[in-house]
Amino acid sequence: MGNADYVYPTSNVEGAHRVAVPPPQPFVKSLKYNLKETFFPDDPLRQFKNQPPSRKFILGLQYFLPILEWAPRYTLEFLKADLIAGITIASLAIPQGISYAKLANLPPILGLYSSFVPPLVYAMMGSSRDLAVGTVAVASLLTASMLGNEVNANENPKLYLHLAFTSTFFAGVFQASLGLLRLGFIVDFLSHATIVGFMAGAATVVCLQQLKGILGLDHFTHATDLVSVMRSVFTQTHQWRWESAVLGCCFLFFLLTTRYFSKRRPKFFWIAAMAPLTSVVLGSLLVYLTHAERHGVQVIGKLKKGLNPPSFGDLIFVSPHLMTAIKTGIITGVIALAEGIAVGRSFAMFKNYHIDGNKEMIAIGTMNIVGSCTSCYLTTGPFSRSAVNFNAGCKTAVSNIVMALAVMVTLLFLTPLFHYTPLVVLSSIIISAMLGLIDYEAAIHLWNVDKFDFIVCISAYVGVVFASVEMGLVIAVAISLLRVLLFVARPRTFILGNIPNSNIYRNVEQYPNASTVPGVLVLEIDAPIYFANSAYLRERISRWIDEEEDRLKSSAEASLQYVILDMGAVGNIDTSGISMFEEIKKITDRRELKLVLANPGSEVMKKLNKSKFIENIGQEWLFLTVGEAVAACNFMLHTCKPNPLKDDQSEAYNNV
Amino acid sequence: MGNADYVYPTSNVEGAHRVAVPPPQPFVKSLKYNLKETFFPDDPLRQFKNQPPSRKFILGLQYFLPILEWAPRYTLEFLKADLIAGITIASLAIPQGISYAKLANLPPILGLYSSFVPPLVYAMMGSSRDLAVGTVAVASLLTASMLGNEVNANENPKLYLHLAFTSTFFAGVFQASLGLLRLGFIVDFLSHATIVGFMAGAATVVCLQQLKGILGLDHFTHATDLVSVMRSVFTQTHQWRWESAVLGCCFLFFLLTTRYFSKRRPKFFWIAAMAPLTSVVLGSLLVYLTHAERHGVQVIGKLKKGLNPPSFGDLIFVSPHLMTAIKTGIITGVIALAEGIAVGRSFAMFKNYHIDGNKEMIAIGTMNIVGSCTSCYLTTGPFSRSAVNFNAGCKTAVSNIVMALAVMVTLLFLTPLFHYTPLVVLSSIIISAMLGLIDYEAAIHLWNVDKFDFIVCISAYVGVVFASVEMGLVIAVAISLLRVLLFVARPRTFILGNIPNSNIYRNVEQYPNASTVPGVLVLEIDAPIYFANSAYLRERISRWIDEEEDRLKSSAEASLQYVILDMGAVGNIDTSGISMFEEIKKITDRRELKLVLANPGSEVMKKLNKSKFIENIGQEWLFLTVGEAVAACNFMLHTCKPNPLKDDQSEAYNNV
Repeated sequence: MGNADYVYPTSNVEGAHRVAVPPPQPFVKSLKYNLKETFFPDDPLRQFKNQPPSRKFILGLQYFLPILEWAPRYTLEFLKADLIAGITIASLAIPQGISYAKLANLPPILGLYSSFVPPLVYAMMGSSRDLAVGTVAVASLLTASMLGNEVNANENPKLYLHLAFTSTFFAGVFQASLGLLRLGFIVDFLSHATIVGFMAGAATVVCLQQLKGILGLDHFTHATDLVSVMRSVFTQTHQWRWESAVLGCCFLFFLLTTRYFSKRRPKFFWIAAMAPLTSVVLGSLLVYLTHAERHGVQVIGKLKKGLNPPSFGDLIFVSPHLMTAIKTGIITGVIALAEGIAVGRSFAMFKNYHIDGNKEMIAIGTMNIVGSCTSCYLTTGPFSRSAVNFNAGCKTAVSNIVMALAVMVTLLFLTPLFHYTPLVVLSSIIISAMLGLIDYEAAIHLWNVDKFDFIVCISAYVGVVFASVEMGLVIAVAISLLRVLLFVARPRTFILGNIPNSNIYRNVEQYPNASTVPGVLVLEIDAPIYFANSAYLRERISRWIDEEEDRLKSSAEASLQYVILDMGAVGNIDTSGISMFEEIKKITDRRELKLVLANPGSEVMKKLNKSKFIENIGQEWLFLTVGEAVAACNFMLHTCKPNPLKDDQSEAYNNV
Repeated sequence: MGNADYVYPTSNVEGAHRVAVPPPQPFVKSLKYNLKETFFPDDPLRQFKNQPPSRKFILGLQYFLPILEWAPRYTLEFLKADLIAGITIASLAIPQGISYAKLANLPPILGLYSSFVPPLVYAMMGSSRDLAVGTVAVASLLTASMLGNEVNANENPKLYLHLAFTSTFFAGVFQASLGLLRLGFIVDFLSHATIVGFMAGAATVVCLQQLKGILGLDHFTHATDLVSVMRSVFTQTHQWRWESAVLGCCFLFFLLTTRYFSKRRPKFFWIAAMAPLTSVVLGSLLVYLTHAERHGVQVIGKLKKGLNPPSFGDLIFVSPHLMTAIKTGIITGVIALAEGIAVGRSFAMFKNYHIDGNKEMIAIGTMNIVGSCTSCYLTTGPFSRSAVNFNAGCKTAVSNIVMALAVMVTLLFLTPLFHYTPLVVLSSIIISAMLGLIDYEAAIHLWNVDKFDFIVCISAYVGVVFASVEMGLVIAVAISLLRVLLFVARPRTFILGNIPNSNIYRNVEQYPNASTVPGVLVLEIDAPIYFANSAYLRERISRWIDEEEDRLKSSAEASLQYVILDMGAVGNIDTSGISMFEEIKKITDRRELKLVLANPGSEVMKKLNKSKFIENIGQEWLFLTVGEAVAACNFMLHTCKPNPLKDDQSEAYNNV
């Protein structure tokens, strides 16, 4: 970049600015910066700076156990609020826990166990004040379908149970490691659109599974896809039990009505929250009084009294099924994590406090590791329960402790009361919860705003409903990633024109009143230039030049002399991209056009400099803005005759 | 976007411009545009426009058979040049063909067959004038290692041969379909860095395999990784044949010397081109005269006379090995394609003509389909042979026809001459060709210009050498894609400052003399805003605001009032990104800061408009340039007192 080369045209145009090459940075420093941005974007160590060691220790302890931070500031007023919220969510947690355990083909009592230990762990480690811990329908169903492919829960219940604990253990380990290794951003790859479609699909599938309970069927398919379920339902029409179906529809109607009412009048949120427990009580009473269990209405049966038995010894690490357990753990773990963190973040946004995703992952992971050793299966922060918690006015995670205590009392004394609870009531509870997850309004919004997101959403839905839950997820994530790759592989290029009465240049499609400059083609490239798009960009830029020359020829305007590439939106470039520029330079040289670059960013300048392309193109043909580049081109066009200019330029090339 | 809301501040600042929402486009039209850009970026149908049907038919025929285009213009002068080039490459093709066929564990005669039919097909269909068709070392080795895993070539040579034809057939079908379906851009995902590392690794592996021939070993490992080969070599040191090794080293020395000489004096390119054939002749004579084949020097043995027998009947489509054949076909096909197209493009760039990647794929694919039915295995345009062709002054694809005729003569009359050719000479020929592929200078260049590309290159190399050829490729492509995803997942954000004496705002890291504006934080986002980065950007922007407020507090400057986001480099946004903006808006509102957007592009404006975010933020807080945004903020800062302004603003929010 010898200054001697720095002769024209910038020196002739008033006020033109020179493009700077950013000051060189040592490799280690820039690597450190990049690693920090990748793994510590939230700068969690900031508060540790300039603190004495003892303070650092306390801060570190508080990082992993946020309860140490807020417990000292806990007040009686908070306790009152948390007590009400805790009781409310317990009344929801008990019937939901039993229902979801049935959905996972696990003993119903596990649903209660899972609402006892994990909430206590979360209350100590979690940083959300609104998350209510419990099992979730989608993860339960996934556990059933993935483990069910390997082991039949009816034929070999013990092995199945142990596999469920093992997969919960691995889910916890996976979740906690993601948090500890600062890889929380993996969850971000489940886009909003994916989650909308996936949730709706999973809800549909879960509802379909409930046809077993509603129709009182004994045998049912293990597959979750629509076709298998429909075949299973309609091949055994003679087995349908009308008593069960009538009961189920009544309760479903009751639950939906209360939910609708509470939604209209948020003050009466507790009506919807209490409805499931009320249904359970009413249903049980009805069965007890009418002895409907003898007329085809299936009931839960005996539930063991007592707290969670330890299950550490049940984890199996040497088994032909180990891989299945690990796979199930990872997939259910990621899904549970995505729900838990999304829910935590949404409520934190409402109440204006901050949630650290990686910290949450460690909390949820630890909760599942501990859970897997105390007869619990996978838990997270379900949306429905957390919303009830929030509406009930919870202040801190103490509401989880209250819920856990209420569940403890149930486990110790009240389990016999569930003996006569009809399964069909549980099915109704699940269906009514699931219908809320089908967010068709969000899908319509996606269609209106972003068609591609809509496609992602619909493929997730279709994949889940017609293939399998995992397949739907994989398809949706693959399409989302494809979109990102496609954005880079096919970047948009625009012709820029001059906005009237300014020296601003903008896309002529967006600003139809912008006018192009005679003899100058201004192109904007809208993405980083990488191997994936360098071949395309070469083709596309040549085509723009072809089209522009054709147009000028047909309209008998002045011939094309300059091609200005606006690099403002080119965030980065790799060696393939630099080769592309070298080829473009050759193409323009051959056509006797001058290539000019405007506004290259710091990363681009660094690499163009290192690869000597700046020397190739000439430092004087780099401009800070498109406006200055056009001004310089115009200056050259009007002070020199076209032909001498071209000769002059080609000499300039040879000298470089 | 009611105009009534459009009150201040832009109306108060002179010369401020309004940001336009691009005119709405019907969904079908924009879909069509996107599909065209994705699949037809080179607009191949342009020449068909406004032509009569008969002309269209001829153009269409010429598209698939470019020979129809250039043959009528063929001159005697061209023929002279092509004749010389054709003879030269034939002298290289014969020994190389035999060598590579041995490398693929196929009968040596297949190497000659493969230099006869495919070049004829390519001469009719190919659009490159410099590509010389033939087999390549890497694809040969891959065939050997992938098919060798399934079928032992020594125990079951017939099945192995048939599988090789079948995989060639599938490679051809795959290549041609990529071209026909306009999916040629898949090849672009093999970046330059990947190819450098992969080629060097493959060359290393091929050289290692030649230890078998050089040392005259009978048994050798089927694995290609360094460790297995070294173990295989050093566990049978008692089997080493010194006669073979001495012969090999001599010929290698001869070949390398001629190559070095020709490289220094490009005029004598034919010395290096003739050296392999000379080696073969010399080696055969030596063995014939000394009867070295009885002293441990292995020879080729009998080669069948006659042209390619048809092999259509040998293709197997119902076999337990079908999947292996398809997999081998696809992987070798992609690699062969990448090499062929890269070579064609490079030489086209030199000679200033254009190559259509998709058309080339159809040509190469057809050539392999035809080849698989005429006893040929996978062919493409190898770099070494094409470079010799180019240096020999070839003018058109007729040089391929000349080569094919020369090979035909050899097949018909000269095969007995190869009976005494020692295998060790073939090994020397392969090694000397392979050493040229280890392009360490390119690797050094990558390190200097782009560290990440260097990592990609080295992982490809290490993967190929220590794991397997396919593994190396998969690792390199995965890392390259990871880079693209990481670019999107962790976009850079910069603080912008004012370049002195201008209203231009640029990254303060790149322009250390740029000065920030008191009370205003200007941030640039350097990538599209997608689900993969929306969570990160929310964190990062909050952190920028935190840091800026901390800095201002410690330096007792005026407090922060405005946050301007420069959206110039944001090429696209999805619904997750819009939610991110809504959250950022809430965060800034809560901190009593005003969020301002500068220079949103057309895609972004479209989506912000559809999602009503423009109404949320207020049309008057969108600016065409950062300069105008800052001017408006400054105007507000200096005309109104800070506190009333804030109140005023929060009212404004409520009204929106």
